[in-house]
Amino acid sequence: MIEINAPRLLADLYELRKIGAYKTGVHRPTLSEDDTTARYWFADKLKAMGHSAEIDGVANVIGRAPTDGPCLLAGSHLETQNHAGWLDGALGMIYALETARAVSESAAHAGSGVDVAAFADEEGHFESMFGSRSWVGELAEETIDAARDQTTEMPLREALAKAGLAGKPRLQMPRERYLAFLEAHIEQGDWLEANDLTIGIVTSIVGTWQDRIVIDGTQNHAGTTRMSIRRDAGVAATRLLQAIERDFPKVAGERTVWTTGRITLEPGARAIVPGRAEIMFQYRDADEAIMQRLHECLLELIAEENATGPCNVRHEVIGHASPAHMDPTVQAAFTEAAERLNPGKHTMMPSGAGHDARVLSRHLPTGMLFIPSISGVSHHWSEHSTDEDIVAGARVFAAAAGELLSAASG
Amino acid sequence: MIEINAPRLLADLYELRKIGAYKTGVHRPTLSEDDTTARYWFADKLKAMGHSAEIDGVANVIGRAPTDGPCLLAGSHLETQNHAGWLDGALGMIYALETARAVSESAAHAGSGVDVAAFADEEGHFESMFGSRSWVGELAEETIDAARDQTTEMPLREALAKAGLAGKPRLQMPRERYLAFLEAHIEQGDWLEANDLTIGIVTSIVGTWQDRIVIDGTQNHAGTTRMSIRRDAGVAATRLLQAIERDFPKVAGERTVWTTGRITLEPGARAIVPGRAEIMFQYRDADEAIMQRLHECLLELIAEENATGPCNVRHEVIGHASPAHMDPTVQAAFTEAAERLNPGKHTMMPSGAGHDARVLSRHLPTGMLFIPSISGVSHHWSEHSTDEDIVAGARVFAAAAGELLSAASG
Repeated sequence: MIEINAPRLLADLYELRKIGAYKTGVHRPTLSEDDTTARYWFADKLKAMGHSAEIDGVANVIGRAPTDGPCLLAGSHLETQNHAGWLDGALGMIYALETARAVSESAAHAGSGVDVAAFADEEGHFESMFGSRSWVGELAEETIDAARDQTTEMPLREALAKAGLAGKPRLQMPRERYLAFLEAHIEQGDWLEANDLTIGIVTSIVGTWQDRIVIDGTQNHAGTTRMSIRRDAGVAATRLLQAIERDFPKVAGERTVWTTGRITLEPGARAIVPGRAEIMFQYRDADEAIMQRLHECLLELIAEENATGPCNVRHEVIGHASPAHMDPTVQAAFTEAAERLNPGKHTMMPSGAGHDARVLSRHLPTGMLFIPSISGVSHHWSEHSTDEDIVAGARVFAAAAGELLSAASG
Repeated sequence: MIEINAPRLLADLYELRKIGAYKTGVHRPTLSEDDTTARYWFADKLKAMGHSAEIDGVANVIGRAPTDGPCLLAGSHLETQNHAGWLDGALGMIYALETARAVSESAAHAGSGVDVAAFADEEGHFESMFGSRSWVGELAEETIDAARDQTTEMPLREALAKAGLAGKPRLQMPRERYLAFLEAHIEQGDWLEANDLTIGIVTSIVGTWQDRIVIDGTQNHAGTTRMSIRRDAGVAATRLLQAIERDFPKVAGERTVWTTGRITLEPGARAIVPGRAEIMFQYRDADEAIMQRLHECLLELIAEENATGPCNVRHEVIGHASPAHMDPTVQAAFTEAAERLNPGKHTMMPSGAGHDARVLSRHLPTGMLFIPSISGVSHHWSEHSTDEDIVAGARVFAAAAGELLSAASG
């Protein structure tokens, strides 16, 4: 069985936390100075244990174990959301690093290895998950050309050049080298904490449909336009959204979520009846059949609104990520390790958030493991977990990796 | 009876239309180069008929008839909304000019006069109606110091200096000089056109309550936060707005209007449950008792939302203009002239929009007259009326002015 070095794991995690420290969290947006520092720092850590390490043309940090035997790929991301948590991404990176080190130090696993990947921009400062998409061959050059930082407006090409990566090749995944991809992450909710559990074994990453709903009415003077002749796009928008709140629960599953993140009324002036409304609406579930029901429900509600009038409602799917199912063998390895190390303290659960594991799962058997987040805080600098839970999670992660490698060698 | 010169009236109106022409409308924002040109142009017109004319320290153009006998004040505004109509404001200015000329040319009205005022910024590019507020003594220097152009951000002080008006005194209304204030305007709705009428005699300018409604919830990850524990400020906002749509009709009057001009969800990201929502909401009616009922209804709905939870709703009145009633004697003069010149083609009606007449009505007997707007278009470059309706309105306006002066002389 693989033995991790807990003090070394925590020391690395706390060292990484200092790069871009903000309050008790971290501000390390993709290809910021601190993020670039973190990438070079991580590459040095990989080299220090004997991996070959490279930062490629899209800022992925790839560490390769010195073996051609049974091999796993493990990793997550180094950048953070703006002014966000110190564990989102970083935890998975240090678990991967420590697991790779533990395997390289384990005589029982001689000839096996764990490659480590820090995928760029899982958080989507420029373009969501462009690093993992590039690695699996799903990212066009044009997408890189067009991407800009959402906060600073800096073109991705310019940011890559600033980091010294212009002209470097994009590394492609050697598909045949890997048994599986493993990613660990802090839970981005309170399920584990609320149920007094230590380990979540991810069954699937939920599907997300992101819609833009556009409502056309007629812009008018708010003082002189009688109610009876108005075509108020804002009123139509709130009516549709309340209809969704009324009907979605009837077709939703137990863990379905739906969210209106933004409502824009145009022109957005106090004394003008809005002539146009735009709604950013998304829904998520791990079950494709439920997603289909929700989609049909939404279309029906839009049709009803159009039949009643007086405005015109259009609907556009601007993002459609199908649910991604985690590999049963990897799930079993996590479950076995968790039950052995922390009996009764683990559960199977879907991931409500997207991860690089979603991209990898289209190409490799993939598994994910969650540890508890205190109060379920996510994407905020106060995100936190305990050292105890961090170490417990790392032990399960490494043990499962060891079992998967042993099974392949045996 | 006063006789206007219709070709002269139309010639002036079409000449003014050229200053800042935009498509078939006009772009002449307050203290823009074109607006300043229009002010000097208008002052020249006043001087040409023998008025003393001055542009004061807040860009009001004030023309004084050479008499100390019975006197009316007439006027409106010269600036336009951005890329807006050619008649909003300009119509009232040229009616006032032509009426003053017709009175000065009328032997029957020797010794009487009509002063003419073009009040600055009725349209609120910098600060709504600062010109008329200054004229009646309701504008503090601090308000001028703080005002900036909403589009260009230029401070009002700088814009006044650019127009050559820095350091000029602000003229104050000689209250005792005037019998009444008269303003004509194109209707900003379709009531006259829809009812095949030529003249609207304004009974009152509606009251407007402008509220900011702020809803505090909890910002969270849209993928991992279960529906049951969410405090979604956006959902609470749409629920409250739909409750308003349900209950306001029960307490509203026939001509009550209410409008949500803007909804802002924070942080406004696709994948984040909104933690805060802000609603800009206003309602208008000419009847103070109805306004009070609407206000109480709104407070009840907010209390209900707070009682049900899970969010917290606050409410702030950020603007409160009471209904302004037009003077009965002026209304009677308009009605008599309209019935004589266009029998059966006039109606009494409230004004749903605010005007300088609202400010003046606190200090002088005040009356307003409307002419039809084609399709009710307002605040848009396609705003239009027919020459026939423009001339018919001017005849009624001047005739009523003549009658009011005659009554005072007799």
